[in-house]
Amino acid sequence: MNIVLLSGGSGKRLWPLSNDIRSKQFIKIFKTEDGKYESMVQRVYRQIKKVDSDAKITIATSKTQVSSIHNQLGDDVGISIEPCRRDTFPAIALATAYLHDILGVSDDEAVVVCPVDPYVEDDYFEALKALGEQAEKGQANLVLMGIEPTYPSEKYGYIIPESKDNISSVSTFKEKPDTETAKRYISQGALWNGGVFAYKLKYVLDKAHELIDFTDYHDLFSKYDTLTKISFDYAVVEKENKIQVMRFSGQWKDLGTWNTLTEAMVDNTIGDAVMNESCKDVHIINDLDIPVLAMGLHDVVISASPDGILVSDKEQSSYIKPYVDKIDRQIMFAEKSWGCFRVLDVEENSLTIKVTLNPGNSMNYHSHKNRDEVWVVISGKGKTVVDGMEQEITVGDVVTMQAGCRHTVFAETELQLIEVQLGEDINVQDKQKFPLDR
Amino acid sequence: MNIVLLSGGSGKRLWPLSNDIRSKQFIKIFKTEDGKYESMVQRVYRQIKKVDSDAKITIATSKTQVSSIHNQLGDDVGISIEPCRRDTFPAIALATAYLHDILGVSDDEAVVVCPVDPYVEDDYFEALKALGEQAEKGQANLVLMGIEPTYPSEKYGYIIPESKDNISSVSTFKEKPDTETAKRYISQGALWNGGVFAYKLKYVLDKAHELIDFTDYHDLFSKYDTLTKISFDYAVVEKENKIQVMRFSGQWKDLGTWNTLTEAMVDNTIGDAVMNESCKDVHIINDLDIPVLAMGLHDVVISASPDGILVSDKEQSSYIKPYVDKIDRQIMFAEKSWGCFRVLDVEENSLTIKVTLNPGNSMNYHSHKNRDEVWVVISGKGKTVVDGMEQEITVGDVVTMQAGCRHTVFAETELQLIEVQLGEDINVQDKQKFPLDR
Repeated sequence: MNIVLLSGGSGKRLWPLSNDIRSKQFIKIFKTEDGKYESMVQRVYRQIKKVDSDAKITIATSKTQVSSIHNQLGDDVGISIEPCRRDTFPAIALATAYLHDILGVSDDEAVVVCPVDPYVEDDYFEALKALGEQAEKGQANLVLMGIEPTYPSEKYGYIIPESKDNISSVSTFKEKPDTETAKRYISQGALWNGGVFAYKLKYVLDKAHELIDFTDYHDLFSKYDTLTKISFDYAVVEKENKIQVMRFSGQWKDLGTWNTLTEAMVDNTIGDAVMNESCKDVHIINDLDIPVLAMGLHDVVISASPDGILVSDKEQSSYIKPYVDKIDRQIMFAEKSWGCFRVLDVEENSLTIKVTLNPGNSMNYHSHKNRDEVWVVISGKGKTVVDGMEQEITVGDVVTMQAGCRHTVFAETELQLIEVQLGEDINVQDKQKFPLDR
Repeated sequence: MNIVLLSGGSGKRLWPLSNDIRSKQFIKIFKTEDGKYESMVQRVYRQIKKVDSDAKITIATSKTQVSSIHNQLGDDVGISIEPCRRDTFPAIALATAYLHDILGVSDDEAVVVCPVDPYVEDDYFEALKALGEQAEKGQANLVLMGIEPTYPSEKYGYIIPESKDNISSVSTFKEKPDTETAKRYISQGALWNGGVFAYKLKYVLDKAHELIDFTDYHDLFSKYDTLTKISFDYAVVEKENKIQVMRFSGQWKDLGTWNTLTEAMVDNTIGDAVMNESCKDVHIINDLDIPVLAMGLHDVVISASPDGILVSDKEQSSYIKPYVDKIDRQIMFAEKSWGCFRVLDVEENSLTIKVTLNPGNSMNYHSHKNRDEVWVVISGKGKTVVDGMEQEITVGDVVTMQAGCRHTVFAETELQLIEVQLGEDINVQDKQKFPLDR
């Protein structure tokens, strides 16, 4: 099975755990059988591999997510990196070209596309396999998954099939309706459109060449920023006549809001949290290292991270976005290709952060124009290079770097530093990278 | 007016703003006319000075509160320091001896005793003055304030006066009753006992000599830890026949729980907080530097500090104590005589804190057995002394101190340091103080 997972953008609706640089699919919130926690993307990846250990999985995503994907899934996963966001048609065209030109997938093989964030069981991935097999038969150019509705939702588009058969031609598509219209659709046998479909590779590659002037993957990649934003639904699906839908009646949840996300939690709390016995249907996800105490609350979600603290009635939590948009703040923590950092203290002319480098990793060799930096090693060992001078470092060592000085650090073991940045104009843009000969 | 303010112990019921070392009376929660915030102790002190600018104010408290009191009220306030907690009779005896022997208050002058934490208006302090004047007349040995009840509370003891006059002899005292009994008391003209009373200095000093073998203030202070714990009510009030009560019908609130405390807040939020319009009767007190977003909540108090996060139904918030008792954690911030500190990061073998020294202040000259320390100056200037060597420091300077090395820092301006502690057994007890010749 060739599968393209679409890994979307920023998820403010799950603030403060997700933010502009940390999307919801990377939040480790799902308890596995061994008691650890995994993210949406880890769960989906594990489930696909369980159903088809040979599956070629390619994640179509933006540059900003690459570090998180490698950190969470390892280095073997295929990633089709969108140089910038250009909606789903360019993204799927690029991923398809990637499969063809980089992974060597042949024209007649099926490709299955699905979002990275549905909360589903193994039967869903069996259904994806069946979807791909149906596409390979060639009865239709596109085979969509039609999810049997469990309620008249206003959140999804609907597919009206021509028959009630497991596989049917598509009669028509309907935009997101109001509840009453949704009820009428459902009485007509309509299915939810979850954005899941399969095609023979050549079909989408041909469509891409029809609509975009490019030679191969590398060419498409290089001109990606010039492409017009257009959705795959609009560019392809709605114009295609040879199109089928395959029913899926298993569990399918879209965990896009705190309200729905908390339904998928095994325990009511993650992290340091205490509830008194008068709390009912309360969920606490605490990513801070201080305790949360909840008393006498009903139907409330509490989520705390270094970015902020949300306390919301669950129903209301789906209206979070405009409020989070107003909270325009410094990013307080981030995953990087080499590890992660967390902001500990912000003052007018200083910023103190805690840096954790994974074993064997290092930062870019870089300098800052407008700030001095001090590193204090608090755990692990490694090496620094400061203006070309290499030095071994271990716990208690202090490294001072004036503005302009080139520096990096290599982690031999996991290495933790307290970094104090000092200057009058501290910002993340102030960084020049340099090659490093070692 | 000679007034003794009893400043009580730890206030877990206002966790996470109060804790074992920060009592509720020091939380800056009351908005003043100029838009700043003051604490209970600052508010009461200001109110007394407004009514009687010559008032001799003595705060009876434990050692742990002395730094906070000086930070909030300045160095002029009198403090009668209890070397350890021995309940109210020894505390009042000690404070009375302090007034007599240290401040030179004469035997016949009145002393008014009241808790430091009632939420009252200026008329209350006028009433305290009247209480003292009544005590000086000598008609009774003790004159109590009787607060006119506004509801049949189970939280207070009751005073039954002999008459409905403004000043009356006391008929009897009643322990905290249940609501039905409280209603009956009130129908009999009972008044709340708020623990406020006045006496001629000699009266309590004589009682103290009767019950305790001591010569003067210094002697009493030195043997304080040998005294029996006994309340002033039990030792004195309940045994006294020449006792009067004076009515007080003004505002008097006991802000001991989040429920009552939030009633005294002018604005619904303090600190970085956003509420959506569907929140009703929600109060947010956010002492962290990350935002709190509240949505769709009713009658809820949210309080966040470096010690933790409370989210509670207001009614339920009065049952907080047993839950906080279970949260046994490191103190994450504290006021000190020289300024304050805040814990930024805790790892197994390191602790990173931010230290703020007030201008003109310094730490004790001290050393640690089991930890190295690194200071990075992030603002201000001053001097360090490390093993006798004096050195000027300013922003960006780094000072490293091995275990065993003696060190201190003097703040010329306000001075902020990031302090990284490194070692396998980091704890607050690991500290030896030394005299410093400068």
